[in-house]
Amino acid sequence: MKKCRICGKKAIIYMPHHRLALCREHFVEWFEKYTERTIKEFKMFTKKDKVLVAISGGKDSLALWHVLRKLGYEADGLYINLGIGEYSEKSKEKVLKFAEKINGKAIIVDLKEELAGIPELVKITSREACSVCGLVKRYNFNKVAKEHGYNVIATGHNLDDEASALLANVLNWNEKYLGRKYPVLEEEAGFVRKVKPFCKFTEKETALYALLNGIDFIEEECPFSEDATSVFYKKILNEIEERSPGTKLRFYLDYLRKIYPKFRKEEEKKELQPCKVCGEPTVGEICPVCRLREKVEASSG
Amino acid sequence: MKKCRICGKKAIIYMPHHRLALCREHFVEWFEKYTERTIKEFKMFTKKDKVLVAISGGKDSLALWHVLRKLGYEADGLYINLGIGEYSEKSKEKVLKFAEKINGKAIIVDLKEELAGIPELVKITSREACSVCGLVKRYNFNKVAKEHGYNVIATGHNLDDEASALLANVLNWNEKYLGRKYPVLEEEAGFVRKVKPFCKFTEKETALYALLNGIDFIEEECPFSEDATSVFYKKILNEIEERSPGTKLRFYLDYLRKIYPKFRKEEEKKELQPCKVCGEPTVGEICPVCRLREKVEASSG
Ligand SMILES: [Zn+2]
Ligand SMILES: [Zn+2]
Ligand SMILES: [Zn+2]
Ligand SMILES: [Zn+2]
Repeated sequence: MKKCRICGKKAIIYMPHHRLALCREHFVEWFEKYTERTIKEFKMFTKKDKVLVAISGGKDSLALWHVLRKLGYEADGLYINLGIGEYSEKSKEKVLKFAEKINGKAIIVDLKEELAGIPELVKITSREACSVCGLVKRYNFNKVAKEHGYNVIATGHNLDDEASALLANVLNWNEKYLGRKYPVLEEEAGFVRKVKPFCKFTEKETALYALLNGIDFIEEECPFSEDATSVFYKKILNEIEERSPGTKLRFYLDYLRKIYPKFRKEEEKKELQPCKVCGEPTVGEICPVCRLREKVEASSG
Repeated sequence: MKKCRICGKKAIIYMPHHRLALCREHFVEWFEKYTERTIKEFKMFTKKDKVLVAISGGKDSLALWHVLRKLGYEADGLYINLGIGEYSEKSKEKVLKFAEKINGKAIIVDLKEELAGIPELVKITSREACSVCGLVKRYNFNKVAKEHGYNVIATGHNLDDEASALLANVLNWNEKYLGRKYPVLEEEAGFVRKVKPFCKFTEKETALYALLNGIDFIEEECPFSEDATSVFYKKILNEIEERSPGTKLRFYLDYLRKIYPKFRKEEEKKELQPCKVCGEPTVGEICPVCRLREKVEASSG
């Protein structure tokens, strides 16, 4: 096993993309400094901003909340109870326990009360669970942030999430995606700023950080998230990474540096206006979530 | 097994990317028509052009020569004996036999006489075999074509070749590659036009065509071509293709349509001038092959 670059003790991780081996103590220290550096590099937020961390109960989002508070940012949590049976109950419990442990404030939204649980929405719309779920989560992140006076929403997306989605979209040459995906999306027309401070960490790195900090997260995958596509492309990228260590990070960072600017210019600005029902920004007259709500009411009426 | 779309007989191949099943007879017919269509689509050449097909003795190049002559194009072959022991002897034999069979003219260049065999060049330069080999082949294709009055060079690159190279270069975001790879490279400043009429056929399709036409090709890989990179990315793309049939062709065609034009503009035109020794176009004063020749002479002197 390699030795820690800082202290020479036995390393617990070697990160070939950084050519860096670190012991337990120095990995934790490095992880936190590197998060800070990413936040500053992309001008994500400062200590003057009010940050709302979208918390699922998984390792990434809990670790993110943990790091941001440790770094001294004003960061509260937002948990959306998706109403997915035992999975939601368990994850909610983890979130509440963690909030108590770090003495953090967690806003809880109950989707069943607000609209309807994911299983019900899937039935009513016959859309894919991950697609409906993404829609209502994005909507609530933005709405709740504004209602409670937060100007930044932070999510726990890691490098594996971002690079695998990028690969899938590159294989389709989805120009819209290539012009839109970035670790910071600035506030605009009713949308709060969105940031991904963990975008340069692999899944392995965030998992290790969570583990070393005794963070009690939910390990089960969402029962709906048979998101085979994302799992498949993560596997493919790991095969490539194994053969050419460093490819995953370089693929993502070079996209940000060289490709995103090229496609971004071309993206036509959509004409956004407030939804006539709820006031959230949308392209049409009524936003997709309010249209969902109409369907829910019609089906239960 | 599926049935032939044309005649309803038992199909021998199903091509999911075309949603097309065909019997033996109609596959051969389709393959030839589709080659013709690709040639016309990209304005590769017409019956007025003199085409030189770069022949290695493998399935793709021999099948290409076969199809072009069957379609009535004026196409001769160019075989470069790379001096790689038994592999070169065997492939030369296949080429000569095939030329005789189709009553075609094959120009033979002996690299050992012209310069030095690949094994020797690898030793002298300590460069990778595939890199040196590519350099001297491209040089000779161009030089021989001009000397013999051909205005087009056709190579047998198939979809697997093109898409796997594209993927490898996308993972590095090699902008130069993305602005340069196209199935037709126009004649310019001393370079003859280069075309790839098989760029839309998978390896499986060209192999089947060669087989059905009784083309006797060399099946061994070049002993140097431990080109693990190309083999690796072909495997990765096949995994993706198996999961999402049609991805390989769409990835390549959408690159040609949407991405190449975007990167092409940015490629600065290199200042080409004739090599002071041999007259072939080059960026510096003396072309890379003439510099190789100097090394060969120095080492044998
Ligand atoms: Zn250490
Ligand atoms: Zn609305
Ligand atoms: Zn048929
Ligand atoms: Zn020269």
